Amino acid sequence: MGGDGHPYAPADLHLPGFVPQQLSQGQILARYLGTSVIVFLAVWLLSGRCRGLSKTDRLLMCWWAFTGLTHIFIEGPFVFTPGFFRKENPNYLDEVWKEYSKADSRYVARDPAIVTVEGSTAVLGGPASLLAVYAIASHKSYSHILQFTVCMGHLYGGLVYFITAYLDGFNFWISPFYFWAYFISANSFWVWIPTLIAMRSWKMICAAFRAEMAKKTK
Amino acid sequence: MGGDGHPYAPADLHLPGFVPQQLSQGQILARYLGTSVIVFLAVWLLSGRCRGLSKTDRLLMCWWAFTGLTHIFIEGPFVFTPGFFRKENPNYLDEVWKEYSKADSRYVARDPAIVTVEGSTAVLGGPASLLAVYAIASHKSYSHILQFTVCMGHLYGGLVYFITAYLDGFNFWISPFYFWAYFISANSFWVWIPTLIAMRSWKMICAAFRAEMAKKTK
Repeated sequence: MGGDGHPYAPADLHLPGFVPQQLSQGQILARYLGTSVIVFLAVWLLSGRCRGLSKTDRLLMCWWAFTGLTHIFIEGPFVFTPGFFRKENPNYLDEVWKEYSKADSRYVARDPAIVTVEGSTAVLGGPASLLAVYAIASHKSYSHILQFTVCMGHLYGGLVYFITAYLDGFNFWISPFYFWAYFISANSFWVWIPTLIAMRSWKMICAAFRAEMAKKTK
Repeated sequence: MGGDGHPYAPADLHLPGFVPQQLSQGQILARYLGTSVIVFLAVWLLSGRCRGLSKTDRLLMCWWAFTGLTHIFIEGPFVFTPGFFRKENPNYLDEVWKEYSKADSRYVARDPAIVTVEGSTAVLGGPASLLAVYAIASHKSYSHILQFTVCMGHLYGGLVYFITAYLDGFNFWISPFYFWAYFISANSFWVWIPTLIAMRSWKMICAAFRAEMAKKTK
């Protein structure tokens, strides 16, 4: 236990009025993962009714719906609720961020770099991800460049997230389990998936220009 | 004058071993602006010898050469010289960052968000900008998506730069002159120019996909 009765590292972190977490890790994760599975399944089934979509397109729609809703409904409330850790009657989302702060206390400590990355992700990345679902479904000409843009946001956000953690002392988790399970593994989805999508969109965009050039030189 | 004989704000910033700036503002700016004008002119003249380039393409090549060289040779040394402010025999670049720190003392204080943004810009943005000069000159199919990527890096870096400054207290300049001339005006070039280039590349990419779709549906 650190100062002010909180469990976070470093122990001298000052969090006056901290209200202990009431939901267990299992309750928090089950609800997030359960909702995510429902979102994935719903988008997968609905996208089957759109014409001309490959399985990859439909999988991408599932990802963009999942990540967009996460940005807006999980990360958004964090950005706009500075005092979530001292609320007398915490809701589910307050508990999510108390749990996640065990892996990165910069969240509960409201580190400016974290608030900036989460704010950009929630306000810009969230709506843009949902727009990507629509853009893929309706074969928009901006579909690839939009997906690429959001991926760049994820990757740049990840760079800022991990590098500032390193430069700031790399001591924000309460145990190796939280470091590996949340800080590394959970975040890694927003590194390797955007990398794959960005590479795919980059290739598609280059191919479109090569086709255009070939037509011109005919 | 703040503590440790430095001129920066806030005055209680601790900079042990600070060596006062020796070059004047005029000397520092004249050398940077003079070199930049030479780079612009050289690229403009050389690009006139490449076939099939519009004036816009040539202007973009000038911008990418200028910004790439700035990232590598001005911002790079900052990232990899943590103690620049206490060097007994400072070189020109140490003096540049002492001067710029008058508008944003997070540079001399080595704020992690600043080091992260500058590090990404120098290491990734610098070489990618120079690659963009080559890509435009040789009409590569990846020219637009590459330029768009670097612009996204500039814009996301700008977001992190300005929002963390605001969240961290917005008190890092020694006078309104430095705030407006360096913090706002100088940085604004890396906001409005990347915005214009990104919009242009976005439109070109969408047009390439529309042409491809039109061909398929014929």
